[in-house]
Amino acid sequence: MMTLSSKLAAIVGPAGCVSVEDSAPYLQDRRGRFEGKALCIVRPSSTQEVARVVTACVEAGVSIVPQGGNTGLVTGSVTDTTGEQVLLSLSRMNIVREVDPLNFTMTVEAGCILQDLQTAAENVDRLLPLSLAAQGSCQIGGNLSTNAGGVQVLRYGNARDLVLGLEVVLADGRIWNGLRALRKDNTGYDLKQCFLGAEGTLGIITAAVLKLFPRPVDPACAMVAVASPEAATKLLTRLQGATGGLVSTFEYMNGECVRGAVEAMDGNRNPLSDYYPHTALIEIGATGEASMRALETTLESAFEDGSITDAVVAQNETQRQALWRIRESIPEAQGRLGAGIKHDVSVAVSRVPELLARGSELLNELVPEGIVMAFGHMGDGNLHFNLNQPGSMPRDAFMSHAGRVNRAMHDLVMSMDGSFSAEHGIGTIKRDDLERYAEPVELGMMRALKQALDPMGTLNPQVMLPPKSD
Amino acid sequence: MMTLSSKLAAIVGPAGCVSVEDSAPYLQDRRGRFEGKALCIVRPSSTQEVARVVTACVEAGVSIVPQGGNTGLVTGSVTDTTGEQVLLSLSRMNIVREVDPLNFTMTVEAGCILQDLQTAAENVDRLLPLSLAAQGSCQIGGNLSTNAGGVQVLRYGNARDLVLGLEVVLADGRIWNGLRALRKDNTGYDLKQCFLGAEGTLGIITAAVLKLFPRPVDPACAMVAVASPEAATKLLTRLQGATGGLVSTFEYMNGECVRGAVEAMDGNRNPLSDYYPHTALIEIGATGEASMRALETTLESAFEDGSITDAVVAQNETQRQALWRIRESIPEAQGRLGAGIKHDVSVAVSRVPELLARGSELLNELVPEGIVMAFGHMGDGNLHFNLNQPGSMPRDAFMSHAGRVNRAMHDLVMSMDGSFSAEHGIGTIKRDDLERYAEPVELGMMRALKQALDPMGTLNPQVMLPPKSD
Repeated sequence: MMTLSSKLAAIVGPAGCVSVEDSAPYLQDRRGRFEGKALCIVRPSSTQEVARVVTACVEAGVSIVPQGGNTGLVTGSVTDTTGEQVLLSLSRMNIVREVDPLNFTMTVEAGCILQDLQTAAENVDRLLPLSLAAQGSCQIGGNLSTNAGGVQVLRYGNARDLVLGLEVVLADGRIWNGLRALRKDNTGYDLKQCFLGAEGTLGIITAAVLKLFPRPVDPACAMVAVASPEAATKLLTRLQGATGGLVSTFEYMNGECVRGAVEAMDGNRNPLSDYYPHTALIEIGATGEASMRALETTLESAFEDGSITDAVVAQNETQRQALWRIRESIPEAQGRLGAGIKHDVSVAVSRVPELLARGSELLNELVPEGIVMAFGHMGDGNLHFNLNQPGSMPRDAFMSHAGRVNRAMHDLVMSMDGSFSAEHGIGTIKRDDLERYAEPVELGMMRALKQALDPMGTLNPQVMLPPKSD
Repeated sequence: MMTLSSKLAAIVGPAGCVSVEDSAPYLQDRRGRFEGKALCIVRPSSTQEVARVVTACVEAGVSIVPQGGNTGLVTGSVTDTTGEQVLLSLSRMNIVREVDPLNFTMTVEAGCILQDLQTAAENVDRLLPLSLAAQGSCQIGGNLSTNAGGVQVLRYGNARDLVLGLEVVLADGRIWNGLRALRKDNTGYDLKQCFLGAEGTLGIITAAVLKLFPRPVDPACAMVAVASPEAATKLLTRLQGATGGLVSTFEYMNGECVRGAVEAMDGNRNPLSDYYPHTALIEIGATGEASMRALETTLESAFEDGSITDAVVAQNETQRQALWRIRESIPEAQGRLGAGIKHDVSVAVSRVPELLARGSELLNELVPEGIVMAFGHMGDGNLHFNLNQPGSMPRDAFMSHAGRVNRAMHDLVMSMDGSFSAEHGIGTIKRDDLERYAEPVELGMMRALKQALDPMGTLNPQVMLPPKSD
């Protein structure tokens, strides 16, 4: 009798099999906190092969973990430690099937690298606005399965909002072709929504039709020191009014973040004349001079009334990239400066100042020596509200606070009607949080969906939904 | 023993009961094609009352038809003719619970009239972009349950895209409070998506958190005669490029539509110097002079290369409203000119010219005397591709072609990977179409969702999903 591994090897062929010596990158969690085992790792090259792999696994009663670029931050894309699961990598399905500039769409396979798709859009003078730190290695199928966020959500929405159609291999191996390229289609339930953000637990996304946008020319970019978080949220509102809603980026960085990015990283310099408690990186993604004028006029009046205290406006692309590099350096700088207790939380934009005040107080109270490094997507109400290891404390001693700190921060945001996982998802890391914070009626609906679309529990069973307690 | 009607009357109180003599508006289809009966009509005033009504109906084994403004076009919000169903109107739940200008959100109850919400947003200098013909009487709960479209989808998306959170009474009477006001929240399946566009078959939406936008000041508006449909789609692309994606409206009207709107309606005059085969109403919703300049510059170059042949740019608000009135008069003008065989179809924007050519040819072939009146949301690929009764043919003789014409038009759009119901939904009118055109795997998933969330078939059972054939 053929083993499941041999059956799957026959389906995907030699090029689709990953040997034991090459398996490490597939089995390790991105942040190095976890290493799984797998019965085998397969890399099908077509939707049909994915379907055949799923069918074979269902017949054998073996569960599957689908994997894209494996860049997620909640350990949602690696197999468990039993060695009994199949890891299904989409990385060989990387064809751009169609680009339609007049329809502002592209049809792409799940394994395409995000940055390659950004380039493919640029090549026809279009913008694919999804943009995030891992874009050089993350895959679009993973981005869609986790409803990825990033630095342009404010204007263009999350990954979910960029999808017009999907092709999905269902949990029983059937293929659903929902690859529509339509802006409007009200013919029944919008089934694609089930799979977007579902972390591979309800079906395996194999291809998608993505929305494209006009490409902003010469975006206007600035870094400003704001008088307070309140002044920052008001500045955002003024900029939106002045531009008709064209602010594409409004990123917050507290003083420690800017200082850290400058001091820990080669080549960065502080673009402002000092370090300030509250700094924002702003970009207006319109066309030509109009956006620059709107930016400058708004900043001038914000100076006059004291809401900002310092600012630098990029005068060319080199300066713009230098400003962005400060923001983009922060995660790596934090790593170099020490271990981090991390959070990915959101509240209503109007409550970000309150979150910053209460969250900082809370962190200072729990670990007085810790360094509060808060940054992120203020325009979306989403902060990476991290606490970094102080020089005075050994790594292990510091990290021993993690559970208590996470819990307190999540309690705080939930008490503010916020989210304990704004853009990173649940994976295995935050399953307990989901169980703790989700209303029973909500967990019940989620379980009903899982039961409806994956009744055998074939797909990524350890991810997202907590096991039933009964 | 108390009857169900008396139980429900006790729950909603006298003000929540509708007497037989007042029942007509609740039981008649908007287009007058259908009149239902009801066991009773109740108008609960709170989420708790809705929940208690649903619970009582479930206990009695009686099904419920939820109703908003009853302005839908596919007979999806009236009870059937058995007189055994309960009609649940949300019209008394019409409170704006909260407006948060800094978060660009408002929290509203399902029975709020759309136009009242537009005004409430304007009052805090914000835009609620959902805009459609029935806005003076449709209710937001109905808009969300049908994923309404309208004339600004191009820039702001469909109703689904405007929702951050929902409160829903489930099919078993439990209340789900998903009223989050967050731009980013990846904590489990995005359950609100299940209820948006589900036409009241999976739950009853009782409240929602809606996204608001900066209010465009002095939008730039023009009506232009385009050389061809191809020239129109290219003009749209050029305008998007010139404005950085600020085109909020790009509405197509064929010659008969403009002529009809002018000749059948008092007060309208043709703003262009002649009637042309292809006309577009364009609006750029930015701020101040920049959008006007972008519009004028683009139109000038389109004149020079022959893609447009005539144009008028509104110089003030009065002129702008006159241009909009032409477009908005079309449905009523069509009614005055005779009976209509109507379609609400969409294709990729890049294929609209092909649809216009093939669709016109098809209609001319099927009913050579008929008057083709095609108009609608070209920027979304969505046309109301109607055939109007000619003077030479009696109404009944003309309408006897309806079934055959509908079928042929729907076959055409589906052969072009389009949609046979772009914005109006399925209701009871298009259930057969859904059964005909949806893949079995897709119908199967829809049935699985219905089974998961409304296993007793309590909510709007005659709507959307075709009865199982087995």
